[in-house]
Amino acid sequence: MKINGQSYRTIWPDPADNSRILIIDQRQLPHKFIIEPLTTLNDAVVAIRDMHVRGAGLIGATAGFGMHLAAVHALPGKVQEALEEGLRLLDKSRPTARNLKWAAERILETAKNGKSDDEKKSIVFLTACAIADEDAAFCKALGDHGVKIIENLSRAKGGETVNILTHCNAGWLAFVDHGSATAPIYAARDAGIKVHVWVDETRPWNQGSRLTAWELQQEGIPCTLITDNAGGHLMQQKMVDMVIVGTDRTTHTGDVANKIGTYLKALAAHDNNIPFYVALPSSTFDWELDRGSDIPIEERSGDEITTISGLAGNGSIETIQLTAPETHALNYSFDVTPARLISGLITERGIVAAEKEAIHRLFPEKSSHDKKE
Amino acid sequence: MKINGQSYRTIWPDPADNSRILIIDQRQLPHKFIIEPLTTLNDAVVAIRDMHVRGAGLIGATAGFGMHLAAVHALPGKVQEALEEGLRLLDKSRPTARNLKWAAERILETAKNGKSDDEKKSIVFLTACAIADEDAAFCKALGDHGVKIIENLSRAKGGETVNILTHCNAGWLAFVDHGSATAPIYAARDAGIKVHVWVDETRPWNQGSRLTAWELQQEGIPCTLITDNAGGHLMQQKMVDMVIVGTDRTTHTGDVANKIGTYLKALAAHDNNIPFYVALPSSTFDWELDRGSDIPIEERSGDEITTISGLAGNGSIETIQLTAPETHALNYSFDVTPARLISGLITERGIVAAEKEAIHRLFPEKSSHDKKE
Repeated sequence: MKINGQSYRTIWPDPADNSRILIIDQRQLPHKFIIEPLTTLNDAVVAIRDMHVRGAGLIGATAGFGMHLAAVHALPGKVQEALEEGLRLLDKSRPTARNLKWAAERILETAKNGKSDDEKKSIVFLTACAIADEDAAFCKALGDHGVKIIENLSRAKGGETVNILTHCNAGWLAFVDHGSATAPIYAARDAGIKVHVWVDETRPWNQGSRLTAWELQQEGIPCTLITDNAGGHLMQQKMVDMVIVGTDRTTHTGDVANKIGTYLKALAAHDNNIPFYVALPSSTFDWELDRGSDIPIEERSGDEITTISGLAGNGSIETIQLTAPETHALNYSFDVTPARLISGLITERGIVAAEKEAIHRLFPEKSSHDKKE
Repeated sequence: MKINGQSYRTIWPDPADNSRILIIDQRQLPHKFIIEPLTTLNDAVVAIRDMHVRGAGLIGATAGFGMHLAAVHALPGKVQEALEEGLRLLDKSRPTARNLKWAAERILETAKNGKSDDEKKSIVFLTACAIADEDAAFCKALGDHGVKIIENLSRAKGGETVNILTHCNAGWLAFVDHGSATAPIYAARDAGIKVHVWVDETRPWNQGSRLTAWELQQEGIPCTLITDNAGGHLMQQKMVDMVIVGTDRTTHTGDVANKIGTYLKALAAHDNNIPFYVALPSSTFDWELDRGSDIPIEERSGDEITTISGLAGNGSIETIQLTAPETHALNYSFDVTPARLISGLITERGIVAAEKEAIHRLFPEKSSHDKKE
């Protein structure tokens, strides 16, 4: 998608040197647009852990390229060992994200087909590229399915603007391109449907105010920033026609782990009869977990709540303290929205009810090996 | 209550000169403790509008003293006119707060009993003091009722810590003393009951992180700051035993207008079978409105969302920009929690169901003139 009118992906290999992976450092957005090179596995781990990159799909793609960087620097004859170490380190970097392990495991497995170091390295790089390409393609496809919901709402409103609320950033910045929650919105814009997005600021990391609002502005989509507290009131006032969010992990029974606060919006949508959709490429599915309550929930530093960064008057990015110094804060990053509150899952294969039978019908190839335990 | 071990109220007349009203400038908390004098009606209007003072009871008390300052500076023979002007200006300063108009109208009416300027001025001052004293006494009384709920929860947990979630600041800083939501908590502490408070940071003005966390720390109550997004997850994890919030206006049918986001917490409490109480001195009741949806909801500047202030490294309070400069934000200050989601109202006369018949039984003197329209 576009930044200052130019097309970008969120991660790409340097065309001149594919052992240099380029990312947009999202910690600096929207104040500064900085492209950062990753040249080692550790760079990729740090980029994921410290949130230079974030978002379900992009974490997966970065894990894929992180595995590639692990292979690039492997000792002779030790590519597979380097990839195993890569999986181990990457898997620890963010505990809730499903795509991360999915991507790293896929590369580890595929690399086994290589008969030499060079062949393994080549397979790893091509698979990492394929993971990124598929992520973009799956997002595009889910957008083409999801746009039908917006089209129907638009028709029901006689062509008036459809107001869509989203939480966190499941935009193209969270994936390789297009985004999950935003893909149907971009598709609607492209189809000439009038849309407006309510952007939850998404405390504490402010993915909404820093990333979603900015990426929508860059794409020319009308949007309004609100606090995470405001969605319920807007829904009561009939100012929201639908909710679309992303997910970091979705059980094959339809429970959704997404950015903390998603559950509260789902409750409000349910209480006000407003459709609540979750958009996801199928790489986000966890085919082993039956219950959302079993998804591990990441706990991050309380400093993300007691301090905040932004643009100071002098043009530098500064961090200020919001609380008395002795304030203790607890910072869970995700919550689980139970399937009963979800109107449907928008996937690259179509829209499906958030329930086991329907999900397995849409992904029959997963049913055979869906339960390892 | 105590600041650095010394007892304070949030507003009081200068003992040496009662035409000087002293307040704590809450915009500076918790970083700086500054006592500000108000000497004119306009000072009081600005203090309310720009949130040097805030909170249901304290807004009422400040309106009372603002009327006193209007009377102090009235032209000879024009005290009643000055008070009418005072009511008009004060009533516009914050639209949702119920206590504000209640206090100003009470003073306007009582002043009519004065036969001379001096008598009127004296009545006005004494009534303003009475409003402040009653606010403190009512909060103390509702604490004595509300503590029974905490006592029962403590007993059910075999004396283990009772975890109470609160939103915004309905602490003593929102009243003249004791607070509404906090009064039962302070009473529990005094009764030797183990309590711990989950403090919602309460975007966008951060009453929770700036005021509630600080006031609880000053009183030695264990507390943990969380984002407004976190409450639902904590409730799902059984980490919350009850919710207590305050209210800015409560219909006589039991609907509650409180800080934006309260409705979302009420939904989550309901979904997890957690008791959700609202604490209020009866001055917060609106005896005319039948439906919460008819309560006017204040809209404040979007700058409160796109920028934020805090303590910079150099010890000064600085404001930073959180978003891209062109970001448009919408900032409603309150939402309405319908009576059906409320376990009970904690008032100075006892705990009552959030329903018209029960409320009128507890306040029978209001039933005779409850409907002007």
